[in-house]
Amino acid sequence: MNPQSYLSAAGLNDLEISAGSRPLLEEVRSYVADEVEPVTATYYALGEGREERWSHTPEQLELLGGLKDKAKARGLWNFFLPDARTGQGLSNLDYAYIAFELGKNPLAPECLNCNAPDTGNMEVLERVGTPEQRRDWLEPLLDGRIRSAFAMTEPDLASSDAHNIACSAVRDGDDWVINGEKYFISGAGDPRCRIMIVMVRTNADAARNKQHSQILVPLPHPGVEIVGPMHVFGRDEAPHGHMHIRFTDARVPDTNMLLGEGRGFEISQLRLGPGRIHHCMRSVGAAERALDLMIERGRQRTAFGRPLLSLGKNTELVSRTRIEIEAMRMVVLKAARAMDVLGNDQARVWVSAAKAMVPERACEIIDRAIQLHGATGVSQWSPLADMYVAQRVLRIADGPDEVHHMVVGRAEIARGRDR
Amino acid sequence: MNPQSYLSAAGLNDLEISAGSRPLLEEVRSYVADEVEPVTATYYALGEGREERWSHTPEQLELLGGLKDKAKARGLWNFFLPDARTGQGLSNLDYAYIAFELGKNPLAPECLNCNAPDTGNMEVLERVGTPEQRRDWLEPLLDGRIRSAFAMTEPDLASSDAHNIACSAVRDGDDWVINGEKYFISGAGDPRCRIMIVMVRTNADAARNKQHSQILVPLPHPGVEIVGPMHVFGRDEAPHGHMHIRFTDARVPDTNMLLGEGRGFEISQLRLGPGRIHHCMRSVGAAERALDLMIERGRQRTAFGRPLLSLGKNTELVSRTRIEIEAMRMVVLKAARAMDVLGNDQARVWVSAAKAMVPERACEIIDRAIQLHGATGVSQWSPLADMYVAQRVLRIADGPDEVHHMVVGRAEIARGRDR
Amino acid sequence: MNPQSYLSAAGLNDLEISAGSRPLLEEVRSYVADEVEPVTATYYALGEGREERWSHTPEQLELLGGLKDKAKARGLWNFFLPDARTGQGLSNLDYAYIAFELGKNPLAPECLNCNAPDTGNMEVLERVGTPEQRRDWLEPLLDGRIRSAFAMTEPDLASSDAHNIACSAVRDGDDWVINGEKYFISGAGDPRCRIMIVMVRTNADAARNKQHSQILVPLPHPGVEIVGPMHVFGRDEAPHGHMHIRFTDARVPDTNMLLGEGRGFEISQLRLGPGRIHHCMRSVGAAERALDLMIERGRQRTAFGRPLLSLGKNTELVSRTRIEIEAMRMVVLKAARAMDVLGNDQARVWVSAAKAMVPERACEIIDRAIQLHGATGVSQWSPLADMYVAQRVLRIADGPDEVHHMVVGRAEIARGRDR
Amino acid sequence: MNPQSYLSAAGLNDLEISAGSRPLLEEVRSYVADEVEPVTATYYALGEGREERWSHTPEQLELLGGLKDKAKARGLWNFFLPDARTGQGLSNLDYAYIAFELGKNPLAPECLNCNAPDTGNMEVLERVGTPEQRRDWLEPLLDGRIRSAFAMTEPDLASSDAHNIACSAVRDGDDWVINGEKYFISGAGDPRCRIMIVMVRTNADAARNKQHSQILVPLPHPGVEIVGPMHVFGRDEAPHGHMHIRFTDARVPDTNMLLGEGRGFEISQLRLGPGRIHHCMRSVGAAERALDLMIERGRQRTAFGRPLLSLGKNTELVSRTRIEIEAMRMVVLKAARAMDVLGNDQARVWVSAAKAMVPERACEIIDRAIQLHGATGVSQWSPLADMYVAQRVLRIADGPDEVHHMVVGRAEIARGRDR
Repeated sequence: MNPQSYLSAAGLNDLEISAGSRPLLEEVRSYVADEVEPVTATYYALGEGREERWSHTPEQLELLGGLKDKAKARGLWNFFLPDARTGQGLSNLDYAYIAFELGKNPLAPECLNCNAPDTGNMEVLERVGTPEQRRDWLEPLLDGRIRSAFAMTEPDLASSDAHNIACSAVRDGDDWVINGEKYFISGAGDPRCRIMIVMVRTNADAARNKQHSQILVPLPHPGVEIVGPMHVFGRDEAPHGHMHIRFTDARVPDTNMLLGEGRGFEISQLRLGPGRIHHCMRSVGAAERALDLMIERGRQRTAFGRPLLSLGKNTELVSRTRIEIEAMRMVVLKAARAMDVLGNDQARVWVSAAKAMVPERACEIIDRAIQLHGATGVSQWSPLADMYVAQRVLRIADGPDEVHHMVVGRAEIARGRDR
Repeated sequence: MNPQSYLSAAGLNDLEISAGSRPLLEEVRSYVADEVEPVTATYYALGEGREERWSHTPEQLELLGGLKDKAKARGLWNFFLPDARTGQGLSNLDYAYIAFELGKNPLAPECLNCNAPDTGNMEVLERVGTPEQRRDWLEPLLDGRIRSAFAMTEPDLASSDAHNIACSAVRDGDDWVINGEKYFISGAGDPRCRIMIVMVRTNADAARNKQHSQILVPLPHPGVEIVGPMHVFGRDEAPHGHMHIRFTDARVPDTNMLLGEGRGFEISQLRLGPGRIHHCMRSVGAAERALDLMIERGRQRTAFGRPLLSLGKNTELVSRTRIEIEAMRMVVLKAARAMDVLGNDQARVWVSAAKAMVPERACEIIDRAIQLHGATGVSQWSPLADMYVAQRVLRIADGPDEVHHMVVGRAEIARGRDR
Repeated sequence: MNPQSYLSAAGLNDLEISAGSRPLLEEVRSYVADEVEPVTATYYALGEGREERWSHTPEQLELLGGLKDKAKARGLWNFFLPDARTGQGLSNLDYAYIAFELGKNPLAPECLNCNAPDTGNMEVLERVGTPEQRRDWLEPLLDGRIRSAFAMTEPDLASSDAHNIACSAVRDGDDWVINGEKYFISGAGDPRCRIMIVMVRTNADAARNKQHSQILVPLPHPGVEIVGPMHVFGRDEAPHGHMHIRFTDARVPDTNMLLGEGRGFEISQLRLGPGRIHHCMRSVGAAERALDLMIERGRQRTAFGRPLLSLGKNTELVSRTRIEIEAMRMVVLKAARAMDVLGNDQARVWVSAAKAMVPERACEIIDRAIQLHGATGVSQWSPLADMYVAQRVLRIADGPDEVHHMVVGRAEIARGRDR
Repeated sequence: MNPQSYLSAAGLNDLEISAGSRPLLEEVRSYVADEVEPVTATYYALGEGREERWSHTPEQLELLGGLKDKAKARGLWNFFLPDARTGQGLSNLDYAYIAFELGKNPLAPECLNCNAPDTGNMEVLERVGTPEQRRDWLEPLLDGRIRSAFAMTEPDLASSDAHNIACSAVRDGDDWVINGEKYFISGAGDPRCRIMIVMVRTNADAARNKQHSQILVPLPHPGVEIVGPMHVFGRDEAPHGHMHIRFTDARVPDTNMLLGEGRGFEISQLRLGPGRIHHCMRSVGAAERALDLMIERGRQRTAFGRPLLSLGKNTELVSRTRIEIEAMRMVVLKAARAMDVLGNDQARVWVSAAKAMVPERACEIIDRAIQLHGATGVSQWSPLADMYVAQRVLRIADGPDEVHHMVVGRAEIARGRDR
């Protein structure tokens, strides 16, 4: 890559949504407002107090199914896929505008089949899957009939260095035999989760970038033990969950290998760009919602005879929050646009810039909103604590902030070298 | 108060623990290390997976009882009371050194009968309780046989302005009849919690500081409904819990009134100083523990071939953390010393300074430690997420940061006026 | 204004430079690189050690004149004016791209006649000047033959509230008689400065927004005493200077009144939008230059056997700096675009957002670069200290940060109200 | 050193000034208030506009001499020396209280002969000087008849790594011949500056810590050229100045060597502890003064009809400033106490902690005060800009912040290892 190009490519700042996608954005907005928002509280209430925590209740699944059907009927499905055959054929830029909206409601992404890690898994299957892999797993995923997981992180490693991944797959005849542990495998607690892409080391002696592969493992599967849920801030997040999984001689056929042995990091490049930026898009929506909540609360509640918003630093905090949200929004749009203009590989500096910037800032913004809400802000009477936890985890998931700063910092230093 | 005195009183900087208390501090250290630390994980494991979440298991209570007996046997009990008759007669300064240690282990405070809100309640009962009130409630509390709650915060108010408290108590013959709601009543979920001090408005027409009273309400009690637990960051914190309570014509005799009608804020002054500073003392201990965990993890884990601590900003973060901990420690010690030298009332600027400074900083420190731990840092495999939540709540409880900054800021401005 | 419109107007995110202006941008880049950069050090060296500090040396003026002639010859002159008759007819958005470049070299703005406060003064004269006012003052300014000043700030006022301005002009026959003091009148120390626009109070009894007027005062002028230079961080910034000026019965004819008595704030609205955003554009350029210097220095200097950039937090600082620069750039572009799309009045929330964000962040960035340079960073061997001072002053000039946060915060709160 | 000892040594928190020194502190306070404050403005006014900038005017020297005589007469002289024979015999802790006061007035340190770098030079001469060296240089310095400089920093080096120092001294018979460059040699511009301690490399082949020596060079001296002043933020700071000095075969006798060849870093350890902590002590005083100015200004100036201090975040800023000042004060006192209790070597972690914390924080505090002052804050009408520059330079001088964080961070990590 020309070390300057990520900064200076023509068209990088054309950040307006395309005219063609604007009606779709409006449709999504009205769908979320009219269909999803009114039932969100009900959906979560249905899940409370049940004995069997690790599945949705039939009522929840019915409600969710209804929402999905309505979305499909309105043509709001699988936006995230840039390929017009399988998805809406949206550019990354146009998708960003829609994802900002999805970030404001925790149910919305799944209703539109745009939730992680399914989006990344579908994108991978679409791009590198064999016809059989696509038939068996991509189609039901595109249809929303099953869900999926992505197993990368391991408990005994510093998560900043993916090259250490040690879970092994050894060739045995036509099979691969997998042994090792993974943790924080999001979604693997849900019985609807039927397929998992697993990052494994297939050859410890190969070059650093060729040691690993990605392989499909169906769920449930012999030799694949779900040890239990990893908590995040003390919550097990049932029934979605972030699972600790142990592989003991788990055996899958070679036809489950994705793209080819040793090409794990190649696939990672493919998925991580979109996956990370999709998270950041939704994070901007979450920050926007936190600001809305902050203003609403601060206008209604009074102390010392005045609305909270007019006390002390609060008006300035609202201003700083708005400015930071717009700054985040523009950097995310620019990263999405860079993927459209430069391709995922050359856009990776921008994706890392967004990933390093957005969740950290979103945490600060949500934290301010919590503080202005007082005790209610940390409680179940406000969505803010859940939103905080989700953003806080993002500062670690898909590469911790520090690794993304390293990517951006090194690109800048390389740029300096070649001037 | 002479507006200068809080800054310039003689002896404010004598911050060394007294020679007499040093052996006690060492005894506490060894008790926590030898007795409490080894069983802490067991204690929590005993509580997992039980059906009845809102009480401790018999095994937990037995373990806890054993620890308390050992503490009593070693003379480690009720330090927090400055009165030598009921407690150890420790100065606030000396207690601070012990409380730093207690902040490092979540079980330790209760083992030594030094846990909130019991400490504040006991201090209030000791100072203003009638002989009957002391016999009925202070004695079993001092003995560790029951626990207690303190009901102040209300769901419909901005927590920054306590004068809005609306839960009413109306005189009816020899009784008071209470109506209203309280929330975040910590500890009221535990069946061992048998007494609650409730802040009520007894006369809405009185002067601003005379409208409220504090009154004793036993638990359980007719007309007192525990609506349910308030979550903090999605956790119900069973069996301790932070309860939402509704009072409907709850009736208690006038002999349950503390100190006298209309003297509620007078009692608040009494309790809040020690209560707040005790929290801050334990927060310093928690920050110290976070630093220990950060160093331990950062020395053991490697990325890119080097220990995490030698990567990027991490050594500097360790340094900043140590410096901030010492700064917090000294400000807390100074506030404790101010209480000893100036009395709780004149020391309130220092207490507010510590309360405004310490939990905010402790959150940042624990957050750094989480980031360095990666995914493990947010999980149940590390105590850091629990520690974060506890400190985050403290930035709101007992007066949000903003109110304490207002106290300090106004004192400074007044000081300016009188120069 | 519809309180939502500043956020949602169509086209706000079309932030690419127009195809038509791209060659101009390239031409400016090459002009600055080929003509201005090579003589910048010489220009400043020519000014050192002279006895008469309050004028440029003939050699300096000759060098500057040559640069201006070359700029005119290349068609690079008066970009800032949106009116195609007098200027280049650039949109604010297109101008922003050029101004980013001008911010990297301290001489460049004047070489292209795009320096403050001349740009604002010319814009005012062009829009509201009478034919005579335009002939006498706009034409020589457009030509670069004279320079100008803008006198608003007064020494005895809080600069955050312009409505307090007290310098008075009283009608006396066909004249106005001015009395009062102004300070920090930038450029008024330069003998080439021949005209000054002065904000005066003409009617203390009028409505709050109608009390003030703006009036032209030539320099030098009877009754106008230049008391001396105000220092910024200890420097008098000769020969440009920021002057303290006293008006004692200074008399100008009524034909010098701009737009009409009582319309001073109307004119302010006109000038302040562009003036502020032009500053912010150049600030982004300055931040970009600071990053370049930081990388250059950090690659060349070594400590403990490694280049500075690979030590400690420095790579991450480079990354954070790049991300912040891009965030600033996009917010500034969006404000410029808002002026093009919504008009200056409706765009004012965006202008305030940029003004509140950019100089504060630019100060931090330059400060980081200073720290990485060590002692050289604060010295005359690096431009960084000058750059810091210029940005630091901007956090106060044209409305302090706090006032701009108030504008943005209130717009957000109003937006909340009307949802 | 036992890696724990710097944290846990007994007595470290005994931070009250000794009873014996309290009257001295009061005497210094009244001396500064009664004698120095009233003439400070006059002193600086006397120095303005003079042609010969690189010396004080006779009137200035007379005024200064009078102040020094009064100080000597009141027994306020040379406090900084812990040795009771030459100085007051103050502990570092007691001296800290006095230095806090000296930090509030820019003239005060010299009036009491407690200004840098003389204090460090005197301390070195007292501890390691030969009788002849002490007679020739220490005595006139102790007497305040001459001033001195310390030449360490070199223009071509990263200032963070002192082991690179390259200015060479080569033995030639009974002489040393010095060649090289130094810059930012504070005070060397003053004709009263008659002696300079120079850090030189005497043996590039020795072990890393044995390559350098410190040697006395009188001023003026053949072969020692004062090239010119280094500016700080654009100011030459005449007549004190921070000089760029070139040594060309400058020859001094071997009797000028301090302590012995190759012992340069040994002497550095001796001087840098006290030198650094003295700076930090005065920084706390400067921060205190900034808060006083902030409160004074914010009470007097109004905007929007209210005093500035009651607008927006300002009351909270005052609170945060007070809390930060107290935190800095306590950390500085603790470092001073550590020097008394543990000795300079073992106290170095504390000294680095203070040096890494205090000037950075002091810059932020002064910057806040500037912002609240508006344009006046950056001008000569307020001391704040000068104060900012002084503190900003301190973040680089005597080891940049980053190096001190490295010292503290590594000590913590070592502590972790040995647990």
